[in-house]
Amino acid sequence: MTATWVGVDVGGTKVLAVRIDAAGRVVASATRPMPGLTAAPEAVEDAVALAAGDVYGDAPPLALGVSAAGLVDAAGERFLFGAHLPWRDAPLRRNLAERIGVPVVLDNDAHCAAHAELLAGAARGVRSALLITIGTGIGGAVVLDGRVVRGAHGVAGEFGHMQVVPDGLACECGLRGCWEQYCSGRALERVTRVALGRHLDGPEVTALARAGDRVALHSFASVGTWLGVGAASLVSAFDPEVVVVGGGVSAVGDLLLDPARSALAASLQGTAYRPVPEIVPATSGPRAGAIGAALLARDGRP
Amino acid sequence: MTATWVGVDVGGTKVLAVRIDAAGRVVASATRPMPGLTAAPEAVEDAVALAAGDVYGDAPPLALGVSAAGLVDAAGERFLFGAHLPWRDAPLRRNLAERIGVPVVLDNDAHCAAHAELLAGAARGVRSALLITIGTGIGGAVVLDGRVVRGAHGVAGEFGHMQVVPDGLACECGLRGCWEQYCSGRALERVTRVALGRHLDGPEVTALARAGDRVALHSFASVGTWLGVGAASLVSAFDPEVVVVGGGVSAVGDLLLDPARSALAASLQGTAYRPVPEIVPATSGPRAGAIGAALLARDGRP
Repeated sequence: MTATWVGVDVGGTKVLAVRIDAAGRVVASATRPMPGLTAAPEAVEDAVALAAGDVYGDAPPLALGVSAAGLVDAAGERFLFGAHLPWRDAPLRRNLAERIGVPVVLDNDAHCAAHAELLAGAARGVRSALLITIGTGIGGAVVLDGRVVRGAHGVAGEFGHMQVVPDGLACECGLRGCWEQYCSGRALERVTRVALGRHLDGPEVTALARAGDRVALHSFASVGTWLGVGAASLVSAFDPEVVVVGGGVSAVGDLLLDPARSALAASLQGTAYRPVPEIVPATSGPRAGAIGAALLARDGRP
Repeated sequence: MTATWVGVDVGGTKVLAVRIDAAGRVVASATRPMPGLTAAPEAVEDAVALAAGDVYGDAPPLALGVSAAGLVDAAGERFLFGAHLPWRDAPLRRNLAERIGVPVVLDNDAHCAAHAELLAGAARGVRSALLITIGTGIGGAVVLDGRVVRGAHGVAGEFGHMQVVPDGLACECGLRGCWEQYCSGRALERVTRVALGRHLDGPEVTALARAGDRVALHSFASVGTWLGVGAASLVSAFDPEVVVVGGGVSAVGDLLLDPARSALAASLQGTAYRPVPEIVPATSGPRAGAIGAALLARDGRP
């Protein structure tokens, strides 16, 4: 029997599981639909258990890591709040461990993705970094001294809800003008819809942009510019070596990152006298959260 | 001959020196006018040497700490850039050591002030904190694992130039909409001038607010609200235990901090499920930068 670990990423639209071996290689993966925000929390826990079971192979893993899109407490025990998930201050780690019957490690999805980038991705060997994951919304993580900063209450890295526009667009979180209203998959779709008069989803906008469509390129330039403006605030505060950008929206590459680089350089104070950190793409791909969760299950939550 | 250390804080309007004993107590202090932004850098170095000499007592100190309002490189050797000081990428530490003839330690003023708060002030015993110093502009520092985060290039904590209003007020740094245009001594004066039709300086506005003047109270409420809004973005990113607010503008106390507390709570995502950190006043007073610089001279720059 080979030693394996499983990571499950619970996002707003799907539940993604991977199994890794001792070297951290992904040896199986599976996806289940996410029951939705109005589903009972237990239905989502069922989906986690089913997705995990899909990748078990011959035997249960030594441990299961769960990456969840929302606030997880500092101890890794409770899921506090997530705009796209139904749990509210729930003892999720224990619930899942009892339901699934293997040891469970729980962390925020962006912290898990950052762990994957740190161990084997774009942030390998880096002491300080900002990791920005652009999917439906924004996930974030701060790396200092080579470790993911969890924060005093476990909720560091909630970049998406920094206010970038006073009295700006309403956010699902209840606030207004949050960064992720301007820099996210939803923002990409909104900007495109306003310009075209009809709805395209993110992958469609990406395909059009790659084909040189001007509206789609403009949409990515808008989201990329907001990426650079918001990143500049974080760079001013943290002064990291590098900014790593991942998530589905970033799959388009430099069509997003070049406008972000320009906006970052234009939005930082004193750039004649201080280095502007590079913006580089994440390399762990859309499974970063699940892979990071599996690695946390393997290594233990630091 | 008693062992002493001297700290000199070089700000936009004055040069302030303190001498401390081995216990960190201030045993002498002196102030010299700041020659001004258009002065030759050597004139400012003269003022530093003179202010330091003013507090020497019987003998030179074992070492001199210099706290400077601007970007200092990660090695503590060069003053890179400051909107209110004349040096540009200057080897300031070495220049001052040669001129004054004692060992010199150089750091950013907000990092020095944070060091003072950490060792003997409002952040004593704290593992993670944000320190926000509101004077002419904003100085900032991040504390993690009980230490001031300097950043990859030495320039972490430049909170004042985070963009809080797109296309907002022009800032001395060349950007627009910087936080310190809305939350600083200058912002306090501007808001008051707009309401009154005449200029009052910060201490005058403070005196009026303490006497219950409605215009002055409104000015502090405006600056305090922006303090809370900007602090919320930083709290979302860092998740600190506590937010410590110092600097001249904060001398008014809760007339500034209460609006900031309200705005922080109103601007954080998911506050029903996550703690809102306390906002507390700094306790090292207006000499925090000089005291922190003297403590760095005593302890060595970590």
